[in-house]
Amino acid sequence: MPNPIITLTTDFGFRDPYVAEIKAVILSISPNARIVDVTHEVDKFSIRMGAYVLACAAPYFPEGTVHLAVVDPGVGTRRRAILIQTRNSFFIGPDNGVLALAAKRQGVGHVFEITNQKLMFSRISNTFHGRDILAPVAAHLTNGTKPEEIGPEIQKILTAKFARVIKRKDSLIGQVLHIDGFGNIITNIEEKELSSMNIRETVVVKFRNAKFRVKFCRTYAEVEKQEALGIVGSHSFLEISVNQGNAADKFKVKSGDRIALTSA
Amino acid sequence: MPNPIITLTTDFGFRDPYVAEIKAVILSISPNARIVDVTHEVDKFSIRMGAYVLACAAPYFPEGTVHLAVVDPGVGTRRRAILIQTRNSFFIGPDNGVLALAAKRQGVGHVFEITNQKLMFSRISNTFHGRDILAPVAAHLTNGTKPEEIGPEIQKILTAKFARVIKRKDSLIGQVLHIDGFGNIITNIEEKELSSMNIRETVVVKFRNAKFRVKFCRTYAEVEKQEALGIVGSHSFLEISVNQGNAADKFKVKSGDRIALTSA
Amino acid sequence: MPNPIITLTTDFGFRDPYVAEIKAVILSISPNARIVDVTHEVDKFSIRMGAYVLACAAPYFPEGTVHLAVVDPGVGTRRRAILIQTRNSFFIGPDNGVLALAAKRQGVGHVFEITNQKLMFSRISNTFHGRDILAPVAAHLTNGTKPEEIGPEIQKILTAKFARVIKRKDSLIGQVLHIDGFGNIITNIEEKELSSMNIRETVVVKFRNAKFRVKFCRTYAEVEKQEALGIVGSHSFLEISVNQGNAADKFKVKSGDRIALTSA
Repeated sequence: MPNPIITLTTDFGFRDPYVAEIKAVILSISPNARIVDVTHEVDKFSIRMGAYVLACAAPYFPEGTVHLAVVDPGVGTRRRAILIQTRNSFFIGPDNGVLALAAKRQGVGHVFEITNQKLMFSRISNTFHGRDILAPVAAHLTNGTKPEEIGPEIQKILTAKFARVIKRKDSLIGQVLHIDGFGNIITNIEEKELSSMNIRETVVVKFRNAKFRVKFCRTYAEVEKQEALGIVGSHSFLEISVNQGNAADKFKVKSGDRIALTSA
Repeated sequence: MPNPIITLTTDFGFRDPYVAEIKAVILSISPNARIVDVTHEVDKFSIRMGAYVLACAAPYFPEGTVHLAVVDPGVGTRRRAILIQTRNSFFIGPDNGVLALAAKRQGVGHVFEITNQKLMFSRISNTFHGRDILAPVAAHLTNGTKPEEIGPEIQKILTAKFARVIKRKDSLIGQVLHIDGFGNIITNIEEKELSSMNIRETVVVKFRNAKFRVKFCRTYAEVEKQEALGIVGSHSFLEISVNQGNAADKFKVKSGDRIALTSA
Repeated sequence: MPNPIITLTTDFGFRDPYVAEIKAVILSISPNARIVDVTHEVDKFSIRMGAYVLACAAPYFPEGTVHLAVVDPGVGTRRRAILIQTRNSFFIGPDNGVLALAAKRQGVGHVFEITNQKLMFSRISNTFHGRDILAPVAAHLTNGTKPEEIGPEIQKILTAKFARVIKRKDSLIGQVLHIDGFGNIITNIEEKELSSMNIRETVVVKFRNAKFRVKFCRTYAEVEKQEALGIVGSHSFLEISVNQGNAADKFKVKSGDRIALTSA
C-alpha cells in the first residue's frame, strides 16, 4: 500500500496527549501512513456511540483502510484485542462490540486475536493499550504484516447491542441511535421500514416527554425555521430534526430513548 | 499538482462522522491530497462566521489550494453549489456567501455552477451535499479536472453581509466580526481607518453594555493583567482585548454587536 | 528528511483560523512536512499544562521531529523565541518554560535564540509570532536549514515550575500535574517514589476537600464501577481515578492542588 490510511475513533478528546501518542507510534513504524481522525469525542466509555460513528464513516474509505477504534472501559482486563478482516478493510480494537457493527456491514472474513508481542510496544502499560498494542499492530499491518501473523484466528466476537425496530399495525417502535452536533435525533428506523408503514404526508412522533405531528420532508427548508420535520438522513435512517434548530434540546431526547411513530 | 491541498471549513463539529466522511470521499478520489482543517466549529448555520474564518486563513495557503466550505442551512433547496476560481486558488461551497469574502480578497476570476453529475457521488442524499457533491468535485479538481468541466460559468454570486465602518467627526462606528477563543473582540475597523481618526494614546470604546477608555498598544503586556486594551490584531483589524483575560465575557459583547470609538 | 514531522501544541483551540494559518505557513515553505496536532486545547496561557502535555507526547515521535509549542502570554514583549536541539529532536517556541520539560527529558544539546529575519514572515504581527516567526523557522528546519543559522547560541532558558515530591516518614506530599479528559487526577509522584514508601495494598489519599482510602490497582476494573483507585498511569505517574467515572469531579480536585499519601 503506497499511502495506507489508518483511521482513529476514540473517546480520548483532543485536550490530552493521548491521540498524539497514538499517531506518533503509528508514524514511527509506518512513516507513510495517512492518519484520519473519525472522532475522538465519543462519549466516554460509550461503546454504542463509538460503534455507530465508525459504522457511519467506514463505508466511505478506500479499500485497504485500517480502522483503529479505542473505546475501552475494560482496558487491562482479560477482554481480548482483535483484528477483523472484512471484504475490503481491517478493523482493530478491543473485543467489546465497538468494531462489530462497521465490520459486519462490510462482511466479516476472518477474526484474529492480537497476541504477537513482537508487534507490540516493548513496554506495555496497563491503562493505554491503544498506544502500546493496537497502534503498533495497525501500523505493522500497513507495512505488509499478514493478519495471520498477528495471532490465532478466533470465531466469536462481541457485538454492541442496538434495539430492533418493532412493527405493529400502523405503528413503528424504534430507538434513538445518536444525537448529532446539530441536535438531529437519529433513529434506528431505516428508509425501507418507513415505506412498509402506511404513512401519508405526516406522522405522529412520540418520545418520553413529547408528542407531535411532523411532515416528512426531503429537505430541511420545506418547513418553517424552528419547525420540526421527519427526514431520511445521509445514512438512510429516519431523523427527527428542527429546521435551523436543535431537535434534541427542543424535545428533551437523548441517545437510547424510545421513539414511536403512529398515524394519529 | 503533486501534493494538492484541500482545506475544510464547516459547522459540523468533530463529534460526528461527517468530517471523516468528507475526508474519506476526497482520499478515495485523490489519494495524494493533503487535507487541512480550517475549522469545523463555525457556529451552526453562521454563514458570516464561516466567511470570516475562511477569509482569515485562505491568504496563507500556497497557490493552487482548493478551499471547501460547508456551512449550508439551505442544503437540498434550490441554492446553487459553486466553484470560484481566483487568481491563485479555488473555492467550493454553497452559493450563500460563505466563500465570497475570501474569494474577493484574492480577486475573483471565473465562477462556475456545479452541475456535472459525473463528478458527484453516485447516490446523492438530500441533507449532505458536502459529502456527496462538493467533496468529490474538490477532489477531482486536484486530479486535473478543469473548472470548465464542472458546469456552466455564471456571473453573480451571493455575498455575506458585513456592516461598513461609519466615519464621523472624531468617531468611528463599527461592528464586531468575531469573538475568538481567547475572548478577543475582533471588529471590522481596519488599521488604515484608525489612522484617519484623530486618535491620541487612548480612546473611549462604547458597546451596548459597557463604556470605557482603552490604551492603544502594540502588545498585550503593555497593560496590567486583566486590564483592557486596543490592539491591531494579526489580521489588521482593531481588537479590544484584556491582557490574559477574556474581553468578550468582561464587557458582555457578542459577534454582530455595534462598537463606537470616540475621543472622549 | 523525506517526510519530516512537525508537531503543534497550542492554547488556540480549533474554532478560530489560527491553527490553520500556522499549518498554511508550514506547508508553503515545507510542502512535504507532516503536521501532527499534539493539542490545541491547552488551558489559555497555561505554560505548565503546555509543558506537561508536550513532555508526555514528545518521546513517542521519531528522531528528527520538530516540536512547535505556542503558549505565549508574553507575545510581543522582550521574551525570546528559541530553538532547543536535543539528542533526537527539535523544540521551537517562546522561552517561557513551555519547551523545557520535554527537551530536558531528551537531553538538551544546544539552544539558539531565533533572530534571523530571513527565516521569518516578511511582515510580522505583534500578536501572532506563532504564525509569523515560529512556524516559518520550524518549516525551514525541515528543509535543511542548520540550527546555527537561526541565531546565536545561548546558555540559559526558563523552565516551567513543577513542585517536587516531598518524602516524609510513611508519607509522600505531591502535586496534581494535570486533570485529563476522563477526570483522572495525574500527580507528580512517580512509580519509583511510590516503591520507596512503605505501601501495603491500600493508602490514604488526602486532597483539600477529600480524604479517602484507595486500593493500588493495575487496571481500572479491579474495583467496582464508580469506585476510586490508585494506579500508575501510562506516563509512569501515580493517578487517582474512578472506574468508569470522573475522579476530579468527585473529589473536587484541580490542576496544581496538593496531594498527600499516608498509610493511615
